[in-house]
Amino acid sequence: MYEEIINKLSKNDRRAVARSISNIENGDSDADILLQEVASKVGGAYRIGITGPPGAGKSTITNHLTKIYIKENKKVGIVAVDPTSPFSGGALLGDRIRMNEIGQYENVFIRSMASRGSLGGLCKKAIDAADVLDAAGYDIVILETVGVGQSELDIAQAADTTIVVLVPESGDSVQAMKAGLMEIADVFTLNKSDRPGADQAETALKTMISLKYHDENTWLPPILRTIASENKGINELNKEIERHEKFLKEKNKLLPKREEQMKIRIRNIVQEKLNDEIWHSGNENFLNSSLKNVTLGNISPYQIAEEIIINYKNHK
Amino acid sequence: MYEEIINKLSKNDRRAVARSISNIENGDSDADILLQEVASKVGGAYRIGITGPPGAGKSTITNHLTKIYIKENKKVGIVAVDPTSPFSGGALLGDRIRMNEIGQYENVFIRSMASRGSLGGLCKKAIDAADVLDAAGYDIVILETVGVGQSELDIAQAADTTIVVLVPESGDSVQAMKAGLMEIADVFTLNKSDRPGADQAETALKTMISLKYHDENTWLPPILRTIASENKGINELNKEIERHEKFLKEKNKLLPKREEQMKIRIRNIVQEKLNDEIWHSGNENFLNSSLKNVTLGNISPYQIAEEIIINYKNHK
Repeated sequence: MYEEIINKLSKNDRRAVARSISNIENGDSDADILLQEVASKVGGAYRIGITGPPGAGKSTITNHLTKIYIKENKKVGIVAVDPTSPFSGGALLGDRIRMNEIGQYENVFIRSMASRGSLGGLCKKAIDAADVLDAAGYDIVILETVGVGQSELDIAQAADTTIVVLVPESGDSVQAMKAGLMEIADVFTLNKSDRPGADQAETALKTMISLKYHDENTWLPPILRTIASENKGINELNKEIERHEKFLKEKNKLLPKREEQMKIRIRNIVQEKLNDEIWHSGNENFLNSSLKNVTLGNISPYQIAEEIIINYKNHK
Repeated sequence: MYEEIINKLSKNDRRAVARSISNIENGDSDADILLQEVASKVGGAYRIGITGPPGAGKSTITNHLTKIYIKENKKVGIVAVDPTSPFSGGALLGDRIRMNEIGQYENVFIRSMASRGSLGGLCKKAIDAADVLDAAGYDIVILETVGVGQSELDIAQAADTTIVVLVPESGDSVQAMKAGLMEIADVFTLNKSDRPGADQAETALKTMISLKYHDENTWLPPILRTIASENKGINELNKEIERHEKFLKEKNKLLPKREEQMKIRIRNIVQEKLNDEIWHSGNENFLNSSLKNVTLGNISPYQIAEEIIINYKNHK
C-alpha cells in the first residue's frame, strides 16, 4: 500500500500528496511508515523558510515569489504554519484566502497547518510535510511561519535559506529577538518599506549585521526593501535567495548545513516519540492517582516522575 | 547536608534560598534531591502569575503590589522569567534594575532567570524556584514572565491567580493570542490606561469575556485599569487578587486547580528527565555517525530515532 502511495507521490499525484500530509497532520499511526518511505526520496527540493512578526507581509511575499517560480516552470510546495491559531481561532485565515490565488496553479501545492497540540509538534509536522512535497518532486518548498515562540527557529532549522520579513515599525519586537534573528536570517526583507522608519530600521539591521563575526567564508545577510502589496522588490529578493543557494553550494556548505539540521530534527523526533510512548500502559492512571498526594506534599513530583520513567523502561 | 539546607530554608536563611535556586538554575545533579525535600514543605504560599507583552509594565506592577504586601507584613518571593534573553542579551535588564528598590527589603527575595536552554526548561526551573520560596516560608510568590512563546501558559500553570497585563495599544498581538489569554487570565489589567485606545481595548476585552461560557460557579476575569508608573489602580488590583483567592477557597477550587497544574508539571518533568537521560550512553555518538546517511536519504530519521529509543530502553 505504501509503495503505491510513494509511487503516486513521485508522480506528483496531488491527492496522494494531500492525503499523505493529512496522515501526518492527524498523527496517524502509519504516518511513520510513510515518512520512512519518503525519506529515501528527499533532497531534491530547495527549501525556503519565511518568517517574521504577524502582519509583516509574509504571505504576500510568498505569493509573489511563487509566481516567479511558476514562470520559471518550477513546482512549488508551500507549507504555512500558524502557531497562534489555537489562540486566534484562525486569525490568519485572511492570508490563506489571499494565497488561494496561487493555489489555482497546477504546479503549486499549498497546505496550511494550525497548532492543535504543542508548538514543537506543529513544526515537526510541517517539516514532515515538506519532506512529502520534496519526495513528490516539488522543486521549491516554502515553509512559512509567524515568528512566535520558537517557531521561527524550528522552521529555520528546516530551511536552506531563511528569509526574515520585518516592517519599519517592527522596532520593539525585533529588539527583543535581535540576536535570534541574526542567527536564523540568511536574507532580511524590510517590507512595507515606504512607511516611515524604514531608513532607521535598515540602519539598525546593518549595524547588527556588521557586528557579527565574519570572514570571507561567512555569508552576511543582505537587507532587501520590498513593498510586497505592489510586487516591488520581489525579483531582487529572489536574486538574493539564488545568490545564497549558490554560495552554499560553491562553498560546500549545503550538505553540512542539512546534517546539522537533521541532528536537531532527530532529537525532536526522539523527544516526541518518547513522550507519546511513555503515557501508554499504566502510567497515565498512575499519574492521576498520585496527584492528590503530590499536591499535598506527601510525595515529590520528581519521585513520581522517576517512577513513571522506570515503569516505562521496564514495560516490555 | 540536605537536611541542613532544608532546615535553613525553613528559617528563611536568604543565602540558603539563593544557593538552592542557583543549584536549580544550573541544573546541578543534586538539585533533584533538594527538590524532593522541598516538596514536603510547599503549599503555604499563594502564587501569583503576572504576564503580558514586553513593555506592558509588569515589573512596575510587581513592584507596587510587593510594597502593599510588605505593609501587610507579608514575605514576598519574586521569580522573574525572561524567555527572550538569549536573543535580547538582557533587554529586560532595565526592569530588573528598577526592581532592585524592593529588593532592598528584608522580606523580599527577587530572582530573575534568563533562558539558557529551552523555554520549557526555563519555566520548569522557575516553578522549582517558586517551590523553594514556598518552602522557605514566603507568603506570596510572584512569577513574572514576558508572554512570549508559551511562557505565559507555563507560568499560568503554576499560579493560583494569573494577572494578564495589557496596554491600550496591545491590540494586534492581543488579537493573536486572544483565546489563549482568556484561558489563563484570572484578572486583566489594562495598564498605561491613560493612553489613547483604553476604552476600545476594555470594550474588546469585555466582549471576549462575555462570550465565555459561564454559570454562577465560573470566575469571570475582571478588567482593572492601572497606571503603574504613578501607582494608580494597584490597590484595586490587589483587591481583585484577594477576591479571586477567596473565590477559589470558598468554592473548593484551589486544591483541584493545583492538582491539575501538578499533572502538567509532572508531565514536563518526565519529558525533561527522559530527554536528559536518553542522550547519555552511546546515543549521541550514534546520532552523529548517522547524520550523513540520513541526510542523503539512505536511512529515515524515524528509523534512527527508533533505534535510539531502543538503545536507551535496553541500556541498564
